[in-house]
Amino acid sequence: MTLKGLQRRVPILVWGSQYNGRQFADDFLAAIIVMVMLVPQSLAYAMLAGLPPEMGLYASILPLVAYTLFGTSRALSVGPVAVISLMTAAAISRLELSDPSQIISAAMILAMMSGLFLVLMGILRLGFVANFLSHPVIAGFITASGILIALGQLPSLLGISGGGHNLPELLHSLGLGLIATVDAPEWPTIIVGLLTLIYLFWSRKALAPLLQKAGLSARAATMMARLSPIVAVLGSGVAAWSMDLGNRGVTLVGTVPTGLPGLTLPAFSLPLWQSLAVPAMMIAILGFVESVSVAQGLAAKKRERIDPDQELIGLGSSNIAASLAGGFPVAGGFSRSVVNFDAGAATPAAGFFAALLIAAATFFLMPYLAWLPRATLAATIIVAVWSLVDFSIVKKAWQYSRADFLAVVSTIVVTLAVGVEAGVATGILVSIFVHLYKSSRPHVAIVGEVPGTEHFRNVLRHQVITHEHILSLRVDESLYFANTRFLEDLVYKEIAERPALKHVILMCSAVNEIDLSALESLEAINSRLGDLGIKLHMSEIKGPVMDALKRSHFLDDLTGRVYLSQHQAVTDIVQAQA
Amino acid sequence: MTLKGLQRRVPILVWGSQYNGRQFADDFLAAIIVMVMLVPQSLAYAMLAGLPPEMGLYASILPLVAYTLFGTSRALSVGPVAVISLMTAAAISRLELSDPSQIISAAMILAMMSGLFLVLMGILRLGFVANFLSHPVIAGFITASGILIALGQLPSLLGISGGGHNLPELLHSLGLGLIATVDAPEWPTIIVGLLTLIYLFWSRKALAPLLQKAGLSARAATMMARLSPIVAVLGSGVAAWSMDLGNRGVTLVGTVPTGLPGLTLPAFSLPLWQSLAVPAMMIAILGFVESVSVAQGLAAKKRERIDPDQELIGLGSSNIAASLAGGFPVAGGFSRSVVNFDAGAATPAAGFFAALLIAAATFFLMPYLAWLPRATLAATIIVAVWSLVDFSIVKKAWQYSRADFLAVVSTIVVTLAVGVEAGVATGILVSIFVHLYKSSRPHVAIVGEVPGTEHFRNVLRHQVITHEHILSLRVDESLYFANTRFLEDLVYKEIAERPALKHVILMCSAVNEIDLSALESLEAINSRLGDLGIKLHMSEIKGPVMDALKRSHFLDDLTGRVYLSQHQAVTDIVQAQA
Repeated sequence: MTLKGLQRRVPILVWGSQYNGRQFADDFLAAIIVMVMLVPQSLAYAMLAGLPPEMGLYASILPLVAYTLFGTSRALSVGPVAVISLMTAAAISRLELSDPSQIISAAMILAMMSGLFLVLMGILRLGFVANFLSHPVIAGFITASGILIALGQLPSLLGISGGGHNLPELLHSLGLGLIATVDAPEWPTIIVGLLTLIYLFWSRKALAPLLQKAGLSARAATMMARLSPIVAVLGSGVAAWSMDLGNRGVTLVGTVPTGLPGLTLPAFSLPLWQSLAVPAMMIAILGFVESVSVAQGLAAKKRERIDPDQELIGLGSSNIAASLAGGFPVAGGFSRSVVNFDAGAATPAAGFFAALLIAAATFFLMPYLAWLPRATLAATIIVAVWSLVDFSIVKKAWQYSRADFLAVVSTIVVTLAVGVEAGVATGILVSIFVHLYKSSRPHVAIVGEVPGTEHFRNVLRHQVITHEHILSLRVDESLYFANTRFLEDLVYKEIAERPALKHVILMCSAVNEIDLSALESLEAINSRLGDLGIKLHMSEIKGPVMDALKRSHFLDDLTGRVYLSQHQAVTDIVQAQA
Repeated sequence: MTLKGLQRRVPILVWGSQYNGRQFADDFLAAIIVMVMLVPQSLAYAMLAGLPPEMGLYASILPLVAYTLFGTSRALSVGPVAVISLMTAAAISRLELSDPSQIISAAMILAMMSGLFLVLMGILRLGFVANFLSHPVIAGFITASGILIALGQLPSLLGISGGGHNLPELLHSLGLGLIATVDAPEWPTIIVGLLTLIYLFWSRKALAPLLQKAGLSARAATMMARLSPIVAVLGSGVAAWSMDLGNRGVTLVGTVPTGLPGLTLPAFSLPLWQSLAVPAMMIAILGFVESVSVAQGLAAKKRERIDPDQELIGLGSSNIAASLAGGFPVAGGFSRSVVNFDAGAATPAAGFFAALLIAAATFFLMPYLAWLPRATLAATIIVAVWSLVDFSIVKKAWQYSRADFLAVVSTIVVTLAVGVEAGVATGILVSIFVHLYKSSRPHVAIVGEVPGTEHFRNVLRHQVITHEHILSLRVDESLYFANTRFLEDLVYKEIAERPALKHVILMCSAVNEIDLSALESLEAINSRLGDLGIKLHMSEIKGPVMDALKRSHFLDDLTGRVYLSQHQAVTDIVQAQA
């Protein structure tokens, strides 16, 4: 590997060699702020994933270090995120494991496999696979996931039983849970939960303006408001301790092991790995897409760029690190990265410092975290995911195109009705199907010359010049297996309606590929038109398409000629007739 | 339904009303020839499908009548065909049924389900689904199937045991079978089988020229040569009877029930229907594609056309009829249709007359068919499918394009190594994947004006005029979710290399669609270029794409202008600068 190749694979070699004191100061300040935000969030997302809270912390240390070494974004903060945690919960629950140690194992396997998938995709430069999750599908999926996550936290918030991985399950179990406690509501839990929820929604909207009025700078006010969950965490923890809420029916986080576990490889059980392979792949792709979107968005603000293929390596190694550290799948989260960015992180080293601080926290903060009410964490999750729920994409898609609308709506409906994995799969498959369907019956225009130009346009949309014995057809699609039959039908239909026809010109400006199926159809069309005394010409064939045609016999057999431009084709044919 | 709609759905209303005596004579003569060929072929294909021979006859009567009513091709002959019989065998064997009546039931269910699928596809006009089986994939699949079928007949031909549904299984069991009989070969069977095989291969090549020399017309000689299998059938039957070969170790067809069974619905067992649903769908699609290819080819010879959507109804009703009559899945076969065509069939009524004759044969010929050696039928199958084996598609695909080559080779390899269903599925999936992959990283050209014209072409392939402050980019693909990230990366890379740049013109002559994902990318590009003081223009946007863009805010926000042609765009920008 050349030095440049090595630098591309290990980006820290580039920015690390120019690291300076000012960057260190910026990075360390950002790390403190990120740490304060990350500790409660990590506990909460571990709970959301159905795992012991400390696993959230384990997933927030080594992954940050790995990303510092291999990542290309200066702002991305890697760790547990809401949607990936939900997908982790769904994947593990399907295994119906009862032994807690097996559940932990399954989470570590998920992280390891999705990490390996990502690194493999990075090495094979398969990042384009992520493109098949279209923007609207992601937007719809995240909205639906947000609803599932928020509903899934209601039991913890209200002190009732319940759970589930889709809307019918959740509504059913929430209904049963509410009925079961309707006579004796868990008031202490409900009060802690609702107070936190109200405080968090209020602080998100009103705290920053208030702080600004109180004299803080806009940036400081925004930053303080972003950190407001820590006030709720501290307040409810102190309340739980001082009022002994644990003995009044409020579920607390409880004893969390102090310190860090040693590095371990996840258990190797072939059936377990097999049954987690598909979910791991989905988690990998979804985590990658989310991370890259966030990283690209933040990089663009500073006129920087990220390297998507290298991001696969960065995120993949983070997940492998999460697995080794006893954590679960991670990704670059939106809210945590924005906080990191706004807090002034200058290099990926900010993540490294945050990792050190969180590691320290596992030694010093754990005893205090035991007092935290679960209802508080549930409230922070609900507020965090509520901002993800955004149905505007449905309206936008409806206005713009029915195909996108279909993809968005089916993603949302299937995610809600069946679950996250089915939702993602549906989104991808519907997008691809709709795309193929459209290209299988492409738009075709009969074109003529726009007067006074050499430009040819649709006869139905423009005033153009045409000739009775020449048919100029512009097929607005690559010619490939999905539309070859359509093409043959079309040409035969058009010539049947034009008895005076002597020349057909296929204008290929929009034909980006002619595959072997289409080539055979063109050969059939050419020979059939030849039998009828009609010449087939082609114009504006693109270079790569022409290269392919030259490797076949088609151009030798063509009854007509190949022209550089449609204008030349029509001019030449008209002159030859005259 | 209007009269025209009814006539479209029941084409016999059109040609039947003009039916005349001359057509009757032509049709009846063709029917006799087709009947003579079909009777032994039907028995053989039923054996190939792993079913009692008489089911081949049941599948050759009512389906022809149904197709006469609903089909649109004048030459297509519907009945058992090799590849569909092989797929039937594979689908049923996977159920591991031991009760013969259940096997028969399963075959009838397969026919019923594929018939219902086809009719449903016809009503919903989903014929385009068949397009996803590309020409090269079909060619590769048929070649691989031919090899599997031929090898599968060797046990019957050589009097050994053996069988299997893919190459490893077949080779393994043939090896075992050969070893088991190496000390005491079944000479009578081998002699009957090889003699028939040699005769059939010889007659296929040499008989027609010989008969022509003997004074027959070219057409009569070809026709007689096509019917030569009947000579082998008669000869080996007489030999078996006169030499009592049945008691010398030669397996004969044996007693076949005389006459026809009543109409029955296939047994309804939900698990059976469920496990046969996917194979039935594949049989439906493959049968449809084969039938339509044959029908289109023969129709083109007479300058006629078929209606593919109506063919779905025709073939679907044939399969439903096959099921009701106690048969198995059918399709329009190549060899039988060619014989029908060459024999001068004038209308679909030829099929109806053939059905009547075969029905009569079930009453009068059955006692004689019992004497037919299975080795003879095996030889007729081998010779029939040998013409399907054609590896030239591999070479053609290799020369033309790597993508098609990959699709063909993976289809052949998977069909041989795993089986027919996996092979078809692989062919479809690889074709789609390769197509999507290519369109996810499209060809992009930087274009300039060809001197003396208004035409813009690739700067790398043509001598063209460009301007330092204008970048004209032609993206040779629709802009959609699979390539939006590619587009962004590309534009940012190109502008980074051109400090003097003031205008980017996206030439959209090859852009047939801009989906919502791509729209969002264009919005991002527009705003980022705006920040850098570079205007984004677009030219040659097609009508339907423009209609969609007008439904969004994009055109309002565009920093540059939209031009009808690339020439106008460059001219306008250069003039404005001057």
